[in-house]
Amino acid sequence: MGPKHGFCDFGFAKIDTDRKRRKGFAEVVYCPGKTKEHLKKICLGLIKHKEDLLLTRLEKENLLYLKRAIPKLKYNPTAKIAYLLQKKKQVKKGLVLVLSAGTADIPVAEEAAITLEVMGNRVERVYDVGVAGVHRLFSHMELLRKARVIVIVAGMEAALASLVSGLVSAPIVAVPTSCGYGASFGGLSSLLTMLNSCSPGIGVVNIDNGFGAGFLTSLINN
Amino acid sequence: MGPKHGFCDFGFAKIDTDRKRRKGFAEVVYCPGKTKEHLKKICLGLIKHKEDLLLTRLEKENLLYLKRAIPKLKYNPTAKIAYLLQKKKQVKKGLVLVLSAGTADIPVAEEAAITLEVMGNRVERVYDVGVAGVHRLFSHMELLRKARVIVIVAGMEAALASLVSGLVSAPIVAVPTSCGYGASFGGLSSLLTMLNSCSPGIGVVNIDNGFGAGFLTSLINN
Amino acid sequence: MGPKHGFCDFGFAKIDTDRKRRKGFAEVVYCPGKTKEHLKKICLGLIKHKEDLLLTRLEKENLLYLKRAIPKLKYNPTAKIAYLLQKKKQVKKGLVLVLSAGTADIPVAEEAAITLEVMGNRVERVYDVGVAGVHRLFSHMELLRKARVIVIVAGMEAALASLVSGLVSAPIVAVPTSCGYGASFGGLSSLLTMLNSCSPGIGVVNIDNGFGAGFLTSLINN
Amino acid sequence: MGPKHGFCDFGFAKIDTDRKRRKGFAEVVYCPGKTKEHLKKICLGLIKHKEDLLLTRLEKENLLYLKRAIPKLKYNPTAKIAYLLQKKKQVKKGLVLVLSAGTADIPVAEEAAITLEVMGNRVERVYDVGVAGVHRLFSHMELLRKARVIVIVAGMEAALASLVSGLVSAPIVAVPTSCGYGASFGGLSSLLTMLNSCSPGIGVVNIDNGFGAGFLTSLINN
Amino acid sequence: MGPKHGFCDFGFAKIDTDRKRRKGFAEVVYCPGKTKEHLKKICLGLIKHKEDLLLTRLEKENLLYLKRAIPKLKYNPTAKIAYLLQKKKQVKKGLVLVLSAGTADIPVAEEAAITLEVMGNRVERVYDVGVAGVHRLFSHMELLRKARVIVIVAGMEAALASLVSGLVSAPIVAVPTSCGYGASFGGLSSLLTMLNSCSPGIGVVNIDNGFGAGFLTSLINN
Amino acid sequence: MGPKHGFCDFGFAKIDTDRKRRKGFAEVVYCPGKTKEHLKKICLGLIKHKEDLLLTRLEKENLLYLKRAIPKLKYNPTAKIAYLLQKKKQVKKGLVLVLSAGTADIPVAEEAAITLEVMGNRVERVYDVGVAGVHRLFSHMELLRKARVIVIVAGMEAALASLVSGLVSAPIVAVPTSCGYGASFGGLSSLLTMLNSCSPGIGVVNIDNGFGAGFLTSLINN
Amino acid sequence: MGPKHGFCDFGFAKIDTDRKRRKGFAEVVYCPGKTKEHLKKICLGLIKHKEDLLLTRLEKENLLYLKRAIPKLKYNPTAKIAYLLQKKKQVKKGLVLVLSAGTADIPVAEEAAITLEVMGNRVERVYDVGVAGVHRLFSHMELLRKARVIVIVAGMEAALASLVSGLVSAPIVAVPTSCGYGASFGGLSSLLTMLNSCSPGIGVVNIDNGFGAGFLTSLINN
Amino acid sequence: MGPKHGFCDFGFAKIDTDRKRRKGFAEVVYCPGKTKEHLKKICLGLIKHKEDLLLTRLEKENLLYLKRAIPKLKYNPTAKIAYLLQKKKQVKKGLVLVLSAGTADIPVAEEAAITLEVMGNRVERVYDVGVAGVHRLFSHMELLRKARVIVIVAGMEAALASLVSGLVSAPIVAVPTSCGYGASFGGLSSLLTMLNSCSPGIGVVNIDNGFGAGFLTSLINN
Repeated sequence: MGPKHGFCDFGFAKIDTDRKRRKGFAEVVYCPGKTKEHLKKICLGLIKHKEDLLLTRLEKENLLYLKRAIPKLKYNPTAKIAYLLQKKKQVKKGLVLVLSAGTADIPVAEEAAITLEVMGNRVERVYDVGVAGVHRLFSHMELLRKARVIVIVAGMEAALASLVSGLVSAPIVAVPTSCGYGASFGGLSSLLTMLNSCSPGIGVVNIDNGFGAGFLTSLINN
Repeated sequence: MGPKHGFCDFGFAKIDTDRKRRKGFAEVVYCPGKTKEHLKKICLGLIKHKEDLLLTRLEKENLLYLKRAIPKLKYNPTAKIAYLLQKKKQVKKGLVLVLSAGTADIPVAEEAAITLEVMGNRVERVYDVGVAGVHRLFSHMELLRKARVIVIVAGMEAALASLVSGLVSAPIVAVPTSCGYGASFGGLSSLLTMLNSCSPGIGVVNIDNGFGAGFLTSLINN
Repeated sequence: MGPKHGFCDFGFAKIDTDRKRRKGFAEVVYCPGKTKEHLKKICLGLIKHKEDLLLTRLEKENLLYLKRAIPKLKYNPTAKIAYLLQKKKQVKKGLVLVLSAGTADIPVAEEAAITLEVMGNRVERVYDVGVAGVHRLFSHMELLRKARVIVIVAGMEAALASLVSGLVSAPIVAVPTSCGYGASFGGLSSLLTMLNSCSPGIGVVNIDNGFGAGFLTSLINN
Repeated sequence: MGPKHGFCDFGFAKIDTDRKRRKGFAEVVYCPGKTKEHLKKICLGLIKHKEDLLLTRLEKENLLYLKRAIPKLKYNPTAKIAYLLQKKKQVKKGLVLVLSAGTADIPVAEEAAITLEVMGNRVERVYDVGVAGVHRLFSHMELLRKARVIVIVAGMEAALASLVSGLVSAPIVAVPTSCGYGASFGGLSSLLTMLNSCSPGIGVVNIDNGFGAGFLTSLINN
Repeated sequence: MGPKHGFCDFGFAKIDTDRKRRKGFAEVVYCPGKTKEHLKKICLGLIKHKEDLLLTRLEKENLLYLKRAIPKLKYNPTAKIAYLLQKKKQVKKGLVLVLSAGTADIPVAEEAAITLEVMGNRVERVYDVGVAGVHRLFSHMELLRKARVIVIVAGMEAALASLVSGLVSAPIVAVPTSCGYGASFGGLSSLLTMLNSCSPGIGVVNIDNGFGAGFLTSLINN
Repeated sequence: MGPKHGFCDFGFAKIDTDRKRRKGFAEVVYCPGKTKEHLKKICLGLIKHKEDLLLTRLEKENLLYLKRAIPKLKYNPTAKIAYLLQKKKQVKKGLVLVLSAGTADIPVAEEAAITLEVMGNRVERVYDVGVAGVHRLFSHMELLRKARVIVIVAGMEAALASLVSGLVSAPIVAVPTSCGYGASFGGLSSLLTMLNSCSPGIGVVNIDNGFGAGFLTSLINN
Repeated sequence: MGPKHGFCDFGFAKIDTDRKRRKGFAEVVYCPGKTKEHLKKICLGLIKHKEDLLLTRLEKENLLYLKRAIPKLKYNPTAKIAYLLQKKKQVKKGLVLVLSAGTADIPVAEEAAITLEVMGNRVERVYDVGVAGVHRLFSHMELLRKARVIVIVAGMEAALASLVSGLVSAPIVAVPTSCGYGASFGGLSSLLTMLNSCSPGIGVVNIDNGFGAGFLTSLINN
Repeated sequence: MGPKHGFCDFGFAKIDTDRKRRKGFAEVVYCPGKTKEHLKKICLGLIKHKEDLLLTRLEKENLLYLKRAIPKLKYNPTAKIAYLLQKKKQVKKGLVLVLSAGTADIPVAEEAAITLEVMGNRVERVYDVGVAGVHRLFSHMELLRKARVIVIVAGMEAALASLVSGLVSAPIVAVPTSCGYGASFGGLSSLLTMLNSCSPGIGVVNIDNGFGAGFLTSLINN
């Protein structure tokens, strides 16, 4: 079936060529579980239809394979994101702040930040400001107050989300991470923390879902 | 301690008189677990400091008790919300849409909708549009596209959130409800559905947390 | 003990030579946890009793070992199914539709589809029609209505099952998959979605159990 | 909105008047969480559109309220099902067998059986044939072999489903029940048993979901 | 058997008359699950052996029954603790601070505070200082720094424990409470938060276990 | 169907009249979920076939109803067991010891003890010997060593099972109870303790399943 | 400390030289988590005190290391058990039957069977008699009736345990295994099945705990 | 930002140079999830500010990398802790006892013990004193009574914590470990045991969190 139906049918995949019209951005490719041959066909299909390219959780090995067919593909190894834009996005007005509680949360935070930048948002990063040393957060109060939206990335007990929520009136997009061990149960602890915050104004995404946080934040920042 | 410290100390409670400055709305009172005497003291304290009053999950019995001291208190029995505003809020520009998947989700949806209205948002309600009869949703496509933010309230398998997310570019605030039985495990099923959506752009709040959804949505709609 | 008791005793295994009479198909061999020597003995035993051969979740390494003894063994590497039929099955009347929500669900979908074909069913595959771009599904409405039974294979939030169930009167066999991460908890999310569907008419099998879905569907399609 | 859109909009509910065309039976009303006033309006709306009436999990108190407006409404107190058919259904060819493992599973089994009968199926009930005394089951082997579909309702460890599945070639619809205590965890034990059956050919519905089992079975029995 | 064996045998109970020697305080009576007759016999037995009396989770109804036999019994209805000391305890040197995050956590906090006072500790209470308005906590910094041990009682997301731990060098005894709803799962959320704190120095007790927190704190404060 | 098939068919129940031959004791009636009318019919049916009567978890209200029809029925209100034996059982040789960790575990312990006595076992009870005061247990070492089988009934952390197992060579039947609160999660804590014992020789039954423990112990004591 | 205290202190381990007197068999060594050097020291220590040697879950690599120091050590690679007896055990009177539901359960079944043999029990093995083909079990009825104790090893839905329990009066020791996938959740499914059996007379041990089953069974068979 | 703000900003990390003042010890580096380059920068930063160095869960490979830059770094391979102190700590008065239930718990016990020693505590280790041979524990009663604080490290069913708690008046810091298999569910079993102890006086830390136990114990021992 051709794109006149709003998608392009490869059998194993149906590229949604109508996605940009509906959601404001082309279909984003989540890489795990897809073979490298499938990834290449999907990418070339998207390029053929003049769509922007955004691939998440792309392993280096598959990147190298794709690079041979699409040499211009850009890649951020911390975020494991590859992308190729048809034209530069117009920068949105609001400032987005991406906070991480710890150093080990940075890969997820970068997945959010790169997604946000690719989608045309101004992003400031403030990393390693968890509540074990809360003065590190408080020294950035001005930035916190200026942000239109705040993304908070935290594992373990993820107390940072509630704390920041109590300080500002920006909506918060919270990403629990699987950083931790034992009773963190793969991110369950941070997920429950963020869902049960005593301070309202927090929307939660899936554990380790930096991309989803970036995408939602970009929609809020429209 | 007096309000010069940004709160008013009753011993059993410390009313946050600085909340409005930071979060844009006065401290909201979550009623479960508080005695009716405590509720009354907190309300009178807030009134004394010229704060808006918003009480959530207020049972009828406690409402009647409060009404005697604060006759002007308004109450929505479906949402179980009571409120009393110092002055009418200026209405915000964006339209907020509140969807419910089923009829049994309405109390939670109303908690969100009333919260939104109290905070100065224009709200449209579209109830009972779950995916068992998806044409009911599609007949409201125009409204879906006009909304600045969409609140989706759904229990059981909560498929509505993903479906709507695939159709629009508005950010979505999703509220899983505990409607269901058996393997819904008190709302766990709908919570996981919303967190694992294949379509990005959804921020999730706690199970049955209509108030939190309304509050977050109002911040997004600023 | 010999097959006069309805089974053939190898000590480590008792081949059920009466299975076909009771269930309509010979004993199917689930390969994980069996040594390659055991697999070979079981296969040769089944062949000796003129039974059809169907092996699920067979790793390539073990396939190669078996191929040396049974050169005619056929293998589908995506489905990880090997088979060898005594004679071609008569094709059943009803059409079976196998849907997958995403590309990463295809291995499980193929396990169902190959099982169905081996058991004599006509199968149509429609892959990558998840609700993130629901028009891809709607463009196949005619096929959906023609099917006697529909198999739906979906991971993450698995909203596809409820949606399709609301559209057709064919019974649906739903297979949750472990595709996803974080709060998908190894397929728990999609399992709960399918069990809690607001639209009735869905029978659920174990997570990633493509074979079981195919087998059940074949019984329904009799 | 009127029924020309395929539904009838009451604000709090949107009756799906197109359901019968798509699914073969009118919208079924799941009663928990709906007020008795809402139930009455929905019922009268369905009657007005000449739809069959089927209400599940209807408590006696609400039944009495509805009876005053709809005196012809029939009610089965064990199944907690009320119904009123526009005309008698034509009886389907296949025989459906409803088994219960224990006496305490009967309410769920009856919910399935009544649903099946209302939808035009021939139903035989065989109750209290759990594996603690397996000869009770074996004395019904002839009936087991004659059935086109078998519904199995079982709580506790629910071993009955696997056992029956190993004996027959009819597709099985299995309903885990919450009967049990302690480590049955509200039906989780029987649910997992049925999902993990070593014998294929079983489709599982939600815990205590007798209605869903009956509905699915009726679709299979077409 | 008599107290020469270190306990006094009533058949249904064996009062540990050696407890004080080993643990520093007489056997404490946990009331749920014991009949009022059993409670009375245990109390009279303890009094006969000149032991201090401390009963936790004593419902009012049973208190009234005990009062008739032991008129001097003191009772705190918020903490649901009854006690009767042989002689006043010598007050310990260190100051203990009991914090609660919310108003609804006070019953558990009082269970800890009363236990501490009965065991001879100086206690200061600071209630309702959750992170939604963190300045309420910071206005008590001096007290936080003076405490020898700090008990923190919090439900919902319980972020208070980590925050305080990052500010002081006193050991912290953290009590998760079941305050909350939905994804708090009966206190699981606050329990996991406290166990996964990014700031070390926290010992956690069971959900709602104010008594256990008080007892442990008293041992630390020796 | 009559008892010549090994059971007696009442429709709602099939009394297993062959149970005694196979298991050594007549069918035992688990009362929850059965109506009082059903209970009466089952009891009279069993009496008619000269079977022993043993009913577990029988509420007082239903007992009174049954007493009118079967005046000789005996009842233990702590164990909630009713019974009526055709003739006194011959007493078995081995001594069975029933231990409870706390006073609140006694109802479950009595369910085990009465079951054992009804089935002809010599039983000694030692209650309230939990590890908080371990000398209470050690003062019964002689009895522990004399027992042929030991039943251990414990809630909360249930450490008693492992401790006793390390001291004796009798097989241990362990019954976790739901006594406890918070993180005992309805008996999960004690169940996991007993399953994970570092000392071998323990067989575990369901949470609160005193009857099952008594029955198994009686089989071991044959 | 020397063996006069009933143990032999190596610092990292304290060999319990009194174990045989109390439990009837020397301390058994559970190998995971111990270094090969530690294993060797413990073995040599046990040999020095003339204790029997029984090591469970010993990986081949560590076996080879131990063999160099203790050439007479015997090893069963399926059961992963090594042993060396001071003198042959006297064979006990009762017959023990070890059943496995599937072929993949054999390693756990062998762990039980070898443990039983080492401890002086007569063992018969009947493997691969799961309920998918129940006639395989029924053809061994005579053996089932002769057994003094029956060990049942089963994964997936583990229905075999309940079924056998309904047929015999021997006590049953049930071992859930982690065989399975998806909703078997690492053996949780089979564990819950065995705990919730509708037929009494089953004692359950930890998932995959073949050794524990063998040990308990040997105590019962005394 | 410089240390005048109380931290030193490296972008990816913000070293808390004020930690020692607040908590009594410099910021401790938890190594998992940090790259070796990040670890090196953090260490050199801490050294530059004359802070003590304590790194937990440091893998050997990263140690070797750090050793090249910081040759004086000390390392305990069992505890996986590296450290470098500015000057030797003054030894605290109280004696700390570290107990392990089994040999496999020693790595976690050593993490606690080394942390305690680095922080200036006198530590005695008593390993392998689990309840399977309780006389091993009782032979150390004198030491148990002398301790100011006791750390208990135990996996599987972790009964040791309750037992010791019943014997002494020292506060206990309990560390559940993930040692075990099957129904230990990664340490959940030992965690629940410790939280549900029937004997009060126990503070629990995260599963396998030897460092946190050592840190908390050191604060208690001040």
